[in-house]
Amino acid sequence: MAKNVPEVVARRLPRYYRYLGEQLERGVERISSRTLSEMMKVTASQIRQDLNCFGGFGQQGYGYNVYDLHEKIGEILGLNNCYHIIVVGAGNVGRAVANYTGFRNRGFMIEALFDNDPHLIGGRINGLPILDAAQLREYCAVHRPHIAAIAVPRSAAESVLTELEECGILGIWNFSHADLNCRIPVETVHMSDSLMTLSYRISHRTRDDNKGDEQ
Amino acid sequence: MAKNVPEVVARRLPRYYRYLGEQLERGVERISSRTLSEMMKVTASQIRQDLNCFGGFGQQGYGYNVYDLHEKIGEILGLNNCYHIIVVGAGNVGRAVANYTGFRNRGFMIEALFDNDPHLIGGRINGLPILDAAQLREYCAVHRPHIAAIAVPRSAAESVLTELEECGILGIWNFSHADLNCRIPVETVHMSDSLMTLSYRISHRTRDDNKGDEQ
Repeated sequence: MAKNVPEVVARRLPRYYRYLGEQLERGVERISSRTLSEMMKVTASQIRQDLNCFGGFGQQGYGYNVYDLHEKIGEILGLNNCYHIIVVGAGNVGRAVANYTGFRNRGFMIEALFDNDPHLIGGRINGLPILDAAQLREYCAVHRPHIAAIAVPRSAAESVLTELEECGILGIWNFSHADLNCRIPVETVHMSDSLMTLSYRISHRTRDDNKGDEQ
Repeated sequence: MAKNVPEVVARRLPRYYRYLGEQLERGVERISSRTLSEMMKVTASQIRQDLNCFGGFGQQGYGYNVYDLHEKIGEILGLNNCYHIIVVGAGNVGRAVANYTGFRNRGFMIEALFDNDPHLIGGRINGLPILDAAQLREYCAVHRPHIAAIAVPRSAAESVLTELEECGILGIWNFSHADLNCRIPVETVHMSDSLMTLSYRISHRTRDDNKGDEQ
């Protein structure tokens, strides 16, 4: 039923899910496509079109049932599953990911980190063990993690990716600066790209506004 | 000269910068638009069109001078500046940001964190002090930080944003789950959205491939 959700709609799903979750927390039971469109900054007709992909939850003159729609979108997003996550690379980035526990209540559980630095192996970050990268295959064979966060330097990302694919990992959450191509789904978090874009927008805004550059 | 760079081109600049940086590290002195297009996964004519925005560095039959182009794009991105960053919120997200020191060599210096939790105030993360959120205005008046990372819960994000705007912050690096609107540039890192999208892609891929769902 939800198989043919276009990519661009799928990309909006996490935002729908977040907004509807907020409304639920506030005790809102139903919502009009107009209100939803104002929150999402998408036209109301786009909202209706998007939500029709999931089986048309709206009723003329009633709007959408917030709870039902939130549940349905969560289900389409696969959030009813529980995902076990490993983090490859226990440097600053891996440490950051391991410390970011905000998704635990949505069923994303970080289980362990891997590194090849003898000084790090055996240690813990946020209570999670740092294991020897040489044991990655063995670990995956036993524990069958679903997702691997790649938090290694760019130069190592490709070979780590190959190993993870061979280990049967289902999806990659990429924090390395490499743009990875592989058979399995990859989502990249571009922390430094976003900071560079911010720098761009700050410097150009400053110049445009003739405020002078303080740096 | 680089003022009229279209938004979509500006969004590609960090990637150009990264790819050219890689080539520089490898000692590559010049690069054809074709090679660059293969790395960037953008058509060669798009590359030429993009780079013409910056004054046309390419020469027929020669390609682009990697060093010059990298420098120029870095300049357009504002990376010749040094940005002082504060992190508002010293919970897991703020901790993650403070631990992510990968941008220091590009001139982005995190200086301090702020929180209103008495148990956190006075502590340190990655060597950086956690200050009382009540002192934010005073700190900004004295130290004039350029960028603020917002790492507070969604419910607090708007009020923190207002305060930061009043403090004269030039740009916001948003890690909260709120989509912020304000006069100053905001770049949002959607960690949980990317994880939800990954979940979506994993669950739909799994179903499509008839592998069965292991969870």
